Amino acid sequence: MQRLVFLNSKYVNFKDAKIHIEDRGLQFSDSIYEVIPFYGKKLIDLKFHLKRLKYSLKELNIIFNFNTLNYNKIFKKLINSNNKHYGLIYIQITRGVQSRDHAYKKNLKPNTIIYIINRKLNLPNKNFEGKSAITFKDLRWKRRDIKTVSLLGNVIAKNQAIKRKAYEAILVENNKITEATASNVWIIKKNKLITHPANSDILKGVTRETLKKLINQNNLRLFEKTFTVKELYNADEVFITSSGNFVTPIIKIDNKKINKGKIGNISLQLAKLYSSLFIDE
Amino acid sequence: MQRLVFLNSKYVNFKDAKIHIEDRGLQFSDSIYEVIPFYGKKLIDLKFHLKRLKYSLKELNIIFNFNTLNYNKIFKKLINSNNKHYGLIYIQITRGVQSRDHAYKKNLKPNTIIYIINRKLNLPNKNFEGKSAITFKDLRWKRRDIKTVSLLGNVIAKNQAIKRKAYEAILVENNKITEATASNVWIIKKNKLITHPANSDILKGVTRETLKKLINQNNLRLFEKTFTVKELYNADEVFITSSGNFVTPIIKIDNKKINKGKIGNISLQLAKLYSSLFIDE
Repeated sequence: MQRLVFLNSKYVNFKDAKIHIEDRGLQFSDSIYEVIPFYGKKLIDLKFHLKRLKYSLKELNIIFNFNTLNYNKIFKKLINSNNKHYGLIYIQITRGVQSRDHAYKKNLKPNTIIYIINRKLNLPNKNFEGKSAITFKDLRWKRRDIKTVSLLGNVIAKNQAIKRKAYEAILVENNKITEATASNVWIIKKNKLITHPANSDILKGVTRETLKKLINQNNLRLFEKTFTVKELYNADEVFITSSGNFVTPIIKIDNKKINKGKIGNISLQLAKLYSSLFIDE
Repeated sequence: MQRLVFLNSKYVNFKDAKIHIEDRGLQFSDSIYEVIPFYGKKLIDLKFHLKRLKYSLKELNIIFNFNTLNYNKIFKKLINSNNKHYGLIYIQITRGVQSRDHAYKKNLKPNTIIYIINRKLNLPNKNFEGKSAITFKDLRWKRRDIKTVSLLGNVIAKNQAIKRKAYEAILVENNKITEATASNVWIIKKNKLITHPANSDILKGVTRETLKKLINQNNLRLFEKTFTVKELYNADEVFITSSGNFVTPIIKIDNKKINKGKIGNISLQLAKLYSSLFIDE
């Protein structure tokens, strides 16, 4: 079956899915995106993703009503034509094409790209494992609450992690942990959960939001406050959350083992609670 | 005559110049660029631009030897097929196309885009005029010394300037001026020139570099050091420099007139010295 891309108003073959060189996404990273995981026919946390997509558009003043797209039909068609029953729906909306100029025109027609990225989701089954991370300088711009393609700081940090044979890079700014390159960071100390508050220093993760609800429902204590590199190293447990990787335990950071290099009980409990939202066992 | 774009190894019509949706420039702003002005057949400060292009590639670890392109021939062909005798050569090099992942593969083939942007150059002739600017928060990432397409912070600031009927936005970080959205900022106080030092907080402008030489040759005094918003407001003269706009006097900032709203003598002198490098009068 051929791989499809929804490009503006029509479906095109993946290899033919192209945009003009003067698209502002390419020339100015003037573009937002979302990544929505699906499992079976179920789109995970769809409502939160669409809410954030609209927030990103609004903050960048990109005039586009996503609702006009009949997105449910598009997602369904893409999922049905896909050869795996799980993966990620990638949505990117750029401000549009214009003769190159930092100043944008008001009447631009946004370019919309929607397609499926095949990716194994990280579920707490028998293959579930803890991952390692490095700490790295947070090089990103100051509006991390908007989900834009201004991702070079993330790319550099992630590749540094790969180079050092780690899975993720946890970003540090003024000795405080902000988040990781594609996930939010949580620590557990004496049964209390701590994560960075959702302000413009981090992206308000969709998985983070859903997990907050689960934490409340299960009588765990959460503090949304900043924490230092030292607190990270000395945590009883550390895990990261993201759409697609859900709850992923971190058992080693730089050269320091966390929880003696084993997945912690609370992390595992939360990973299971999260996946039970969309997997019937 | 049709407008041409050099795209990788061949020339294509402007309207057909497209890149794949999984180009990393579009999905991660994983891409660098240069803008080289030309006047007549003359490419202005070509050597500096190519040096910076190579620096940007190296800093992002994009493996690409620009010299293999026979760029002189490409520039010549594009200029010859252009209908104006002045303008800007735009060069963008992306890391290449890859299945979407923050981590990049080592063997990617960069995409190269070269074409001409028609733009009037700002020369100190009878139409030369002073411009207005606003001050705005510097939202950009921390590696501004690399000329990447991570330009959203610049775009937001520039559009704020346009909204307030100004020409440029001068960026402020911790009460210090870094630079403007697409230019370096200079102030003159008691015949002394001051501009931000070239470190990772600003882009080392090509026009800035050439102007430094002219300043030395003409026995003017330059101090490369940071300066505050107050020093900016109270300067005797203010001007900005960029490839394409060369030396542009700023005569109003926010609601404050500079030099009583007139182009200053030193700014004018430097604008003339600069343009004399490529225009025979």
